[in-house]
Amino acid sequence: MSQRLLESLTTTEPLAEVFSDGAFLDAMLRFERALARAEARNGIITSSAADAIARAAAPEAFDPASIARDATRSGTVTIPLVQRLIERVSAIDPAAATYVHWGATSQDVTDTALVLCLQRAHAILVANHERLTKALHRLSEQYASAPMLGRTLMQPAPPTTFGLKAAGWFGAVSRSGEQMTSAFKAACVLQFGGASGTLAALGSHGRKVSDDLARELGLPNPEAPWHAHRDRLATLVTSCGIYTGTLGKIARDITLLMQQEVAEAAEPGGGSSTMPHKRNPAGCAIALAAATRVPGLVAAFLAGMPQEHERGVGGHHAEAATTADIVQGTGAALAAVAGAIEGLRVDPVRMLHNIAANSEVFAERAMMLLAPVLGREAAKRVIAQALETARRDGRRFVDVLSEDESVTSAIDLAQLSTLDRPDEYLGSAEEFRRRLIGGDRQ
Amino acid sequence: MSQRLLESLTTTEPLAEVFSDGAFLDAMLRFERALARAEARNGIITSSAADAIARAAAPEAFDPASIARDATRSGTVTIPLVQRLIERVSAIDPAAATYVHWGATSQDVTDTALVLCLQRAHAILVANHERLTKALHRLSEQYASAPMLGRTLMQPAPPTTFGLKAAGWFGAVSRSGEQMTSAFKAACVLQFGGASGTLAALGSHGRKVSDDLARELGLPNPEAPWHAHRDRLATLVTSCGIYTGTLGKIARDITLLMQQEVAEAAEPGGGSSTMPHKRNPAGCAIALAAATRVPGLVAAFLAGMPQEHERGVGGHHAEAATTADIVQGTGAALAAVAGAIEGLRVDPVRMLHNIAANSEVFAERAMMLLAPVLGREAAKRVIAQALETARRDGRRFVDVLSEDESVTSAIDLAQLSTLDRPDEYLGSAEEFRRRLIGGDRQ
Amino acid sequence: MSQRLLESLTTTEPLAEVFSDGAFLDAMLRFERALARAEARNGIITSSAADAIARAAAPEAFDPASIARDATRSGTVTIPLVQRLIERVSAIDPAAATYVHWGATSQDVTDTALVLCLQRAHAILVANHERLTKALHRLSEQYASAPMLGRTLMQPAPPTTFGLKAAGWFGAVSRSGEQMTSAFKAACVLQFGGASGTLAALGSHGRKVSDDLARELGLPNPEAPWHAHRDRLATLVTSCGIYTGTLGKIARDITLLMQQEVAEAAEPGGGSSTMPHKRNPAGCAIALAAATRVPGLVAAFLAGMPQEHERGVGGHHAEAATTADIVQGTGAALAAVAGAIEGLRVDPVRMLHNIAANSEVFAERAMMLLAPVLGREAAKRVIAQALETARRDGRRFVDVLSEDESVTSAIDLAQLSTLDRPDEYLGSAEEFRRRLIGGDRQ
Amino acid sequence: MSQRLLESLTTTEPLAEVFSDGAFLDAMLRFERALARAEARNGIITSSAADAIARAAAPEAFDPASIARDATRSGTVTIPLVQRLIERVSAIDPAAATYVHWGATSQDVTDTALVLCLQRAHAILVANHERLTKALHRLSEQYASAPMLGRTLMQPAPPTTFGLKAAGWFGAVSRSGEQMTSAFKAACVLQFGGASGTLAALGSHGRKVSDDLARELGLPNPEAPWHAHRDRLATLVTSCGIYTGTLGKIARDITLLMQQEVAEAAEPGGGSSTMPHKRNPAGCAIALAAATRVPGLVAAFLAGMPQEHERGVGGHHAEAATTADIVQGTGAALAAVAGAIEGLRVDPVRMLHNIAANSEVFAERAMMLLAPVLGREAAKRVIAQALETARRDGRRFVDVLSEDESVTSAIDLAQLSTLDRPDEYLGSAEEFRRRLIGGDRQ
Repeated sequence: MSQRLLESLTTTEPLAEVFSDGAFLDAMLRFERALARAEARNGIITSSAADAIARAAAPEAFDPASIARDATRSGTVTIPLVQRLIERVSAIDPAAATYVHWGATSQDVTDTALVLCLQRAHAILVANHERLTKALHRLSEQYASAPMLGRTLMQPAPPTTFGLKAAGWFGAVSRSGEQMTSAFKAACVLQFGGASGTLAALGSHGRKVSDDLARELGLPNPEAPWHAHRDRLATLVTSCGIYTGTLGKIARDITLLMQQEVAEAAEPGGGSSTMPHKRNPAGCAIALAAATRVPGLVAAFLAGMPQEHERGVGGHHAEAATTADIVQGTGAALAAVAGAIEGLRVDPVRMLHNIAANSEVFAERAMMLLAPVLGREAAKRVIAQALETARRDGRRFVDVLSEDESVTSAIDLAQLSTLDRPDEYLGSAEEFRRRLIGGDRQ
Repeated sequence: MSQRLLESLTTTEPLAEVFSDGAFLDAMLRFERALARAEARNGIITSSAADAIARAAAPEAFDPASIARDATRSGTVTIPLVQRLIERVSAIDPAAATYVHWGATSQDVTDTALVLCLQRAHAILVANHERLTKALHRLSEQYASAPMLGRTLMQPAPPTTFGLKAAGWFGAVSRSGEQMTSAFKAACVLQFGGASGTLAALGSHGRKVSDDLARELGLPNPEAPWHAHRDRLATLVTSCGIYTGTLGKIARDITLLMQQEVAEAAEPGGGSSTMPHKRNPAGCAIALAAATRVPGLVAAFLAGMPQEHERGVGGHHAEAATTADIVQGTGAALAAVAGAIEGLRVDPVRMLHNIAANSEVFAERAMMLLAPVLGREAAKRVIAQALETARRDGRRFVDVLSEDESVTSAIDLAQLSTLDRPDEYLGSAEEFRRRLIGGDRQ
Repeated sequence: MSQRLLESLTTTEPLAEVFSDGAFLDAMLRFERALARAEARNGIITSSAADAIARAAAPEAFDPASIARDATRSGTVTIPLVQRLIERVSAIDPAAATYVHWGATSQDVTDTALVLCLQRAHAILVANHERLTKALHRLSEQYASAPMLGRTLMQPAPPTTFGLKAAGWFGAVSRSGEQMTSAFKAACVLQFGGASGTLAALGSHGRKVSDDLARELGLPNPEAPWHAHRDRLATLVTSCGIYTGTLGKIARDITLLMQQEVAEAAEPGGGSSTMPHKRNPAGCAIALAAATRVPGLVAAFLAGMPQEHERGVGGHHAEAATTADIVQGTGAALAAVAGAIEGLRVDPVRMLHNIAANSEVFAERAMMLLAPVLGREAAKRVIAQALETARRDGRRFVDVLSEDESVTSAIDLAQLSTLDRPDEYLGSAEEFRRRLIGGDRQ
Repeated sequence: MSQRLLESLTTTEPLAEVFSDGAFLDAMLRFERALARAEARNGIITSSAADAIARAAAPEAFDPASIARDATRSGTVTIPLVQRLIERVSAIDPAAATYVHWGATSQDVTDTALVLCLQRAHAILVANHERLTKALHRLSEQYASAPMLGRTLMQPAPPTTFGLKAAGWFGAVSRSGEQMTSAFKAACVLQFGGASGTLAALGSHGRKVSDDLARELGLPNPEAPWHAHRDRLATLVTSCGIYTGTLGKIARDITLLMQQEVAEAAEPGGGSSTMPHKRNPAGCAIALAAATRVPGLVAAFLAGMPQEHERGVGGHHAEAATTADIVQGTGAALAAVAGAIEGLRVDPVRMLHNIAANSEVFAERAMMLLAPVLGREAAKRVIAQALETARRDGRRFVDVLSEDESVTSAIDLAQLSTLDRPDEYLGSAEEFRRRLIGGDRQ
């Protein structure tokens, strides 16, 4: 089972598998089997009924396509699934058929099955998250003191270091990952409430059965069913939305650095179907696609939260597809950026070259030195004129500035000669970098 | 090929087929075959090459899963597809392999293939649109003079007719459908621009080849390629978004009418996995799910429009999946609402009963009669008091009102006795109804 | 300063004030004054300069309208603000003018000013959150044992209690509020990085000055500037989005309960401009409006996260307006729902009446009793027939069921006679309720 | 009245005025005055009442802030407005007070007032649309034959012309503008239906009064009221969303071209608060901010479409604010891009330089020439090797290629020597350009 053609860039193969028909069917049947066992343990149904249900509930015996088709009529995949399960149990042990899905409601099955899939998806996300943080940490250390142009509003600004840039990415990725993990943990809990969320059909045994069911499935049992309160899932999908935004930011930076005219860094990328010379930022494209698509899906989830009474109509029904799309989009972006960062080629020489070609960015530094001596307005005038001359004549800003007497009388020559040395105008870059990558975050 | 379990409520079987791997693969290969033919006709490549390509490009010979997997590396499904096609052509006629995908770029293939799928999807949407408008028209005619409570902010208001309500649905559906069809027609055009959108590889033959290619595929040829200008597709997806909103409105109305406490109309619906008595508005659930999900997907599409230069990075890459999701969501809602309307059971007696049980809604009418005689403030006081008494004692509003001397001196008894007859307080309802369903719209 | 007409339902008066021109201007000038003081303390600028700046930076001396107008040209409100501040400082002490905004960048001012406004907004949100949780807790306790119909897909289902329903609201509100508060705390931190985020203009004093600046403003100083990493703000706005969804769920439930045909609960609400009898759920309308609007705004924020390099172009520029809209929308919903819950009139007698009128909902209970004796299929048939007869003849389901011999031979009469007593079919409702409202959450 | 500080980049001054308190109040009172006149003309109310209402309904006599405040309680601004209007009319002519707002409902006033504001907004949008199309047309003509690098996935591709790029912008702007205008025209119609949308209070005079009312206000009268059918407004806001996406695409291209490392075009832009050398793409920032923000707002509108019965609760209540935000965002982007294009500085020499520095982009052309002679695989190998050598040694691709004997035996030297002349590899660029800007679109 692989991703589909039209969705090939919005998931990964392992995540597509986690949300595949086979996997979802398996999770639904795990619920039915575990329910029967928990109820048998509490004397609600017989052990032999639980055994028959366990034997009948073999995923390979069910046809997902026909279940999906019938779901359109019932508004849920559980009804056709349970119907088929009853038929199979009847064939094994007619008496046992009575106890299939005993005391549960459709949403108990679909919500818990979704949660089981999300748990598996989380493990995949975490593995890639760890690859990524490790690669970013290494990158930041390796280029700790490699100056590069700062760029604000896509225009050259005073220098920063590639180490700090990578540390900024690392910091955001670390925060996003922590948040994602705690959201998955809080959301991956059992759903079991029966028809109206009171477990009425189980009389006074509700809590006991649900504790056992949770244990069977390896899920925490929350304080109460959450049929119509979707805030935990909402936290999960928004944490994915935020992480995807963080990954999109990294991808955007890389696509900009990878432009031939900039050429400061490049991801491994892919080729073109017609242009032999091309090296495309294919990984970044996948991440930016997710960063474009996932926010809307998050809105779709949030818009569905006002669900009616004990089980909503509509708001609830698109949730599973939307949640699976969001998690897969995030996972696709995460795998793509992890690959891009692990394989990133960085060119610190070109970075220095680009600073030198934009020495005007040190005009701020000149201002800081001149204004206290000449006054703000005079300093502004002198610098503006030097900038204009430097641009017009294609000369180095500092050289032009040094020809102005008011400048040389205000700043000593030693200072002037190093005015545009990037490593002398990095301020707290290294301190910020260490704080971002260091400590308990790593 | 059917819809998947997790997405079973967000598509229909025929639409899932239209966007399936088989169908999309087929559309991509149609492009490659048609391109070869068009180029052979213009002497760009040999006829024998075109023949070899046509023979090699048989959908069943390609494995969508492996293409999807490789697409992750290249950022497009076209590259692995073309690679496999070249291998197959080479086996037939090595010289012909040179001319596979000649002069085209990856996006030419994926965009045009998407357009071919959209054309097929449109036919399905139109068929359901016609079912729906027909059923709504009939419904409006049948219940033209069936009074029912108006309800504003979900509170009882003066009466309307079910005929007008259905005509309102009809009007919105008609407008939405017209807009959808014109959007699909405008968007379903050939994409063919080559590497940079200039068809440079075809020298001076670009236009001629592209005209022939368009003819082969049965698509209009637009004035120029549209690689980075996605407004036509945006119009298509927003038209779907609007139609889905319209369908959601109808579905919401039906779910409200179908409440047991209201019981004025009901769709055929589906059952419950645990409650034998249940009849759920399953069709409305599907439509409202789409109305919850599609707006976010539309936002995702629009957010991706600012695409870089001649082919975007990211914004473009999620489009196909998002577009397919939107169209399928709309189609699922359309099929569900068409079914709900065709099978709608309407209870005009219950409608009358609900009006009678809320005769307070005629307080507005009383106001219209009393205010000109008593003055606004006095009329307001008299009516407020009658409302309070009627509520407290559980009596009919008009009966209480009739006991007030200032009232009986202002309105004659004949008028008073018919004050809460719904058919006498329908204003322009029938005129509006006829204008909505009549004329050129039908 | 009040909310505007077109936005009157999307904010509250206190929140409109927090994000008003006066408040934002004040916050920006607080930054400039505090910066000057922190720099004077560290010997970067003179004390007299800091004094002059403090005197000049009086909010009432600035015209927000003209600053807003000029912002269109510069892409930021900071530039026209600083320009005017320099002019005012020059008039007081020309030498001091040099040191206005020293070492800071535009975004330092706007981000920190936004954070200061968000802190104030948070206090307002928290006050309403506390009103709401208190009112919900009281409501749940008061109606702990008041049975009411469960409703799933808007159809009657076995009973729950109004106490549990209110406890479900309470649980979701509590979780949403905790998350919101921790998100605000994490996001409300100083922004101070200078031109490229390195504080280069402050040489080696960057960290010391930023610590003092943070202290002056009463804000934590994060590990590094966050100019291009917006995940903390994203967490803040998504927490608002989730809380709004939770409030929308409560509002939707109330609008449904408040329908005249249901009449189980009602918020204080508002009147109509033309219908004297009307009582509209005006508070719920505001909350549901927010639940409709905020998800899209959240998507807008997330879509803007992939910001270029050290300061984005575009993605960043809509953030402040979007964030203010989201927080105000959440606050409007919160105030409205707090008011609706505090003033909620509940009718437990009507709740019992509605259960009695829908006694079919106990068919599930009948199934639980009959199936073990008769077998699933036989039980299903018997119940289906009884349901049909009860519906057709408008009789009580249990009465019809009791006439079936296979039933009376399977269930003893005592059980049958209480089959549709709601208080005997509530399962774990009270246990769930206590777990939701009890313990450390309250 | 100007835009507010926090929203200064999300609107323009003229559009902020159109949706200001004063303007909206004025539009609401225009409705009330016109309604009174239309009813007087039809003998529904007296002429003297209409006169009194006209005199009392003077906008300057109303306090928007207090109306906005009271709206929170009633869920609409109409109720407090009408209340104040009644008081004012009473003071002039007590009898006339009875006839204020006669037969109308709150939504009639707010919807029609919004429509009146939208009409004014449309005129502003159109004026900027015309500026923009004119400037784009001129730009395309001026640089019709200026070759520049194509760029796909932000990597160099075979050349296009700046004329074609501008024509692509022109085409999308033209289509978007046409669509916007037709959407505004269809949506800007009278809303007048009374309490339940039947105009019951006007008896048989409904249509006649509404025709006169429409004429008074200069609005078309649609076939029926549209209280709960919002598709026309939805089409208006989605047309704005699409246009904003188109503007975002142009802005993104300009920000990329304006990078110092590319330097092929620059908008006038704005400065920096701390960096004297900076020229920021301030106009593009505004447009890209809108392209980030508006899609989410469009989703918010669409998500609100499923409105309950004759007047929705919630879905309807956020519409006016959302619509005003969308239109202002579009207008801000339109004004900004019009300014950017009118003031665009283009550097065709630099464009040629950037092509020369990336002569590898002609590898496709080499492939087209070599593959028919050498076969696809052999040609691919030769070209790949030449690309590698050219990159490694920093040489011109064609020079390296010319050293390969298999190449020189396949292509004659004349062809080889012009292989990387951009004007010889433009294919249909000029034809596409003329088709895009020419004809009836201009």
